[in-house]
Amino acid sequence: MENKSKNMTVVGAGLVGSLWAVYLAKAGFNVNVFERRSDMRLNQSAAGKSINLALSFRGWKALDDIGIGDSIREIALPMLGRTMHHLDGSTTYQPYGNFDQAIYSVSRAALNAKLMDIAEKTYFANFHFDMECIKVDAEQGVTHFVNKKSNLKLCKQSDVVFAADGAFSAARYNSMQKLDMFDYSQQYIQDGYREILLPANPNGSYKLTKDSLHIWPRGRFMLIALPNFDGSFTCTLFMPFKNHTHCFENLKSKKQVNNFFKEVFPDFFELMPQVAEAWNEHPLSSLALIRCFPWVNKNLVLLGDAAHATVPFFGQGMNAGFEDCSVLWEQFVDNQYDWNKAFERYQLKRKPNTDAMQDLSLLNYVVMRDKVADNDFLLLQKVERRINFLYPQHYFPLYAMVSFTNIPYKTALVKGKEQEELIKKCIIAHQITHDSSLEDIDNAIHVLVENGLIHS
Amino acid sequence: MENKSKNMTVVGAGLVGSLWAVYLAKAGFNVNVFERRSDMRLNQSAAGKSINLALSFRGWKALDDIGIGDSIREIALPMLGRTMHHLDGSTTYQPYGNFDQAIYSVSRAALNAKLMDIAEKTYFANFHFDMECIKVDAEQGVTHFVNKKSNLKLCKQSDVVFAADGAFSAARYNSMQKLDMFDYSQQYIQDGYREILLPANPNGSYKLTKDSLHIWPRGRFMLIALPNFDGSFTCTLFMPFKNHTHCFENLKSKKQVNNFFKEVFPDFFELMPQVAEAWNEHPLSSLALIRCFPWVNKNLVLLGDAAHATVPFFGQGMNAGFEDCSVLWEQFVDNQYDWNKAFERYQLKRKPNTDAMQDLSLLNYVVMRDKVADNDFLLLQKVERRINFLYPQHYFPLYAMVSFTNIPYKTALVKGKEQEELIKKCIIAHQITHDSSLEDIDNAIHVLVENGLIHS
Repeated sequence: MENKSKNMTVVGAGLVGSLWAVYLAKAGFNVNVFERRSDMRLNQSAAGKSINLALSFRGWKALDDIGIGDSIREIALPMLGRTMHHLDGSTTYQPYGNFDQAIYSVSRAALNAKLMDIAEKTYFANFHFDMECIKVDAEQGVTHFVNKKSNLKLCKQSDVVFAADGAFSAARYNSMQKLDMFDYSQQYIQDGYREILLPANPNGSYKLTKDSLHIWPRGRFMLIALPNFDGSFTCTLFMPFKNHTHCFENLKSKKQVNNFFKEVFPDFFELMPQVAEAWNEHPLSSLALIRCFPWVNKNLVLLGDAAHATVPFFGQGMNAGFEDCSVLWEQFVDNQYDWNKAFERYQLKRKPNTDAMQDLSLLNYVVMRDKVADNDFLLLQKVERRINFLYPQHYFPLYAMVSFTNIPYKTALVKGKEQEELIKKCIIAHQITHDSSLEDIDNAIHVLVENGLIHS
Repeated sequence: MENKSKNMTVVGAGLVGSLWAVYLAKAGFNVNVFERRSDMRLNQSAAGKSINLALSFRGWKALDDIGIGDSIREIALPMLGRTMHHLDGSTTYQPYGNFDQAIYSVSRAALNAKLMDIAEKTYFANFHFDMECIKVDAEQGVTHFVNKKSNLKLCKQSDVVFAADGAFSAARYNSMQKLDMFDYSQQYIQDGYREILLPANPNGSYKLTKDSLHIWPRGRFMLIALPNFDGSFTCTLFMPFKNHTHCFENLKSKKQVNNFFKEVFPDFFELMPQVAEAWNEHPLSSLALIRCFPWVNKNLVLLGDAAHATVPFFGQGMNAGFEDCSVLWEQFVDNQYDWNKAFERYQLKRKPNTDAMQDLSLLNYVVMRDKVADNDFLLLQKVERRINFLYPQHYFPLYAMVSFTNIPYKTALVKGKEQEELIKKCIIAHQITHDSSLEDIDNAIHVLVENGLIHS
């Protein structure tokens, strides 16, 4: 393919836009990336929303496919399991998978900067900042911008336009949403979030175990913490905005914040008695799912959050966006470098899976805030982990299918539900409790296997 | 209340905007209505989509509440039931209700013109045409327009702005959709529609019985016909766009159209052998549901399709929009003429009901195209009509609750489902068939009544 003669426009230099620029530029295309914000590498203020993120298998695969996984591993911290912090100060630990299976905490800003550097300095993609997309002429491949510093209007003609400009994509809003037969929904959940930085100890050491994702599940709300390289943790409080005993509306004064933490997260408050002072360092933000279809309008295609923004409770937003890149690239190669064919296959293949990913994100919200402290759920997980331990190559729990494989999300969702039903029945049939011996559990599992739960 | 000092802006001079202008102007407000299109009364081309519509109880109530029902009755034709046209040319008739209960066929253009005339000439509302809404400053009550003929930009300050500018409301798109926590969805169905005018006989008489809504139900698609005053019928074919044996994609040539009508609507084809010639007189159009919330942003409020556009299968789009007017007015009066309080109560009261109305519209699509030719459904309807006949003051079938009462849509939906389940159980328990005697049916109904189905 004569790539160098082909001009590619990418709208958005966030995580997905920057990774996609690497894919295109490495293949030899002439790539121009336009970003509404200023160059985050210069002003060091974090672009976008959350401060750190969890990279898992699908994200790594997309990075490794294009040969940059090892560069990113340098800035990623493994989290091998969940540490649950209970109200009485006790903790419970659940490994995420077997052996060294882990998800990885990365700083959004550091990852984004590194992806931009690779695209720009190693593969010569051109980045243009402060360029707000006004509209895209999808037929002609012309993207219109306004430079936010000069107020000058500019446009760029290219063969294909990739919109990776996030949940509230300007390209989608201005160039697709009024098309006949364009399905679209934006659905906010009744909960918001606020980030809180838990600093390192004075000597730079971590205040919590660093190879875990920490959760304080409290039913209708929860606090989580992900480790940073400097010994700090980025913590996020998810909670209803209003209409609940514990809600953001009821946390306005420092006194209210302090009383709240003392009451519901006493061990955290002990680690961070200055929490009320840090309260306003990050804004209170809302959470929405965005679904739409089609993702393609002639020479314009949506990637990442622009196509399927989700709530963060399965840690799959970025991973799904990165997987978009590997799937679209695969389709491009498989369809003899014909973008239009690749786009069509990509959207048909991808849409049911990102729908399932969004369903999983909502489901996992309930799991994280609620069920991780529920005895029946913990027993189910115990049995499931044992199956996974006995048959690590043949049985994958839902969490593992989503986080440690690239089984399509839709398949994972369906299979995960089937598996859960089978294990529930097994627990009832064999009267398994938290007091059951390992031998009893193994015998029950043996029956499940004989009945075809797994095909070993 | 000192209404004359209060300036009201209405965006959209369609059916709902014009009726709402009557409400406001009659109460003495200073009303300005801005419409994107030219004055339809001058050029006689029909605004909006369908050519005629079915007015039912909720619509009439909103018209009568403001004292203009009788003016509209002059241009309305009663339809007392459904006439089903079967493939073999036979017909079945189902009355809609008891006695003279009817829905009324009205021409959209004639109704709209009359509402505008009443607002303008009787109550002195000011209408401004060719004014496209660009945005609304909801805080200040300033609406910005561009005049489509002069290209001049204008703005209008007022105390309150009512957006009744339809499914793809510019006020909503430009001034609400990007607000944090604004839920929105536009969902297209896989079926489109095309209108066909069945002319009167040469002597001006009707080719079909004029006091019926005619339906040719064919499973996955259907044709309907509503009478006009001049002896013609406006017919609408609803059908999938593609991917079905019978779909619009397969009806491109005159020959294909003719063969299709001969095969599936032979009696209609006999009445209108020139159908293929008339095929392109009206465009193929798509159908969407639009849901959103909130409907209120400070001094801006949504009414009608702008808040809850629906598919047309229960004939409730206009009726629900008119009911918005009567409900909002009632709230305004009940809340001591405080618009902000009225808006809040209006949206909270109305949203669950218009959601139910949209659900009912989708449900009735299946009923109209499919179930009206289904034996089990017909038996259920037969029993239900008998209950309604025996207890006309105490039992209302779902269709009657929606069309002949102003029971809230949500209540109607819930109660309708309960009633359907009870009758189904009754049919099974008493082994009722199409051959059962009236006495057997009455006995079974008697048991239902004793068990509390209705409270007579």
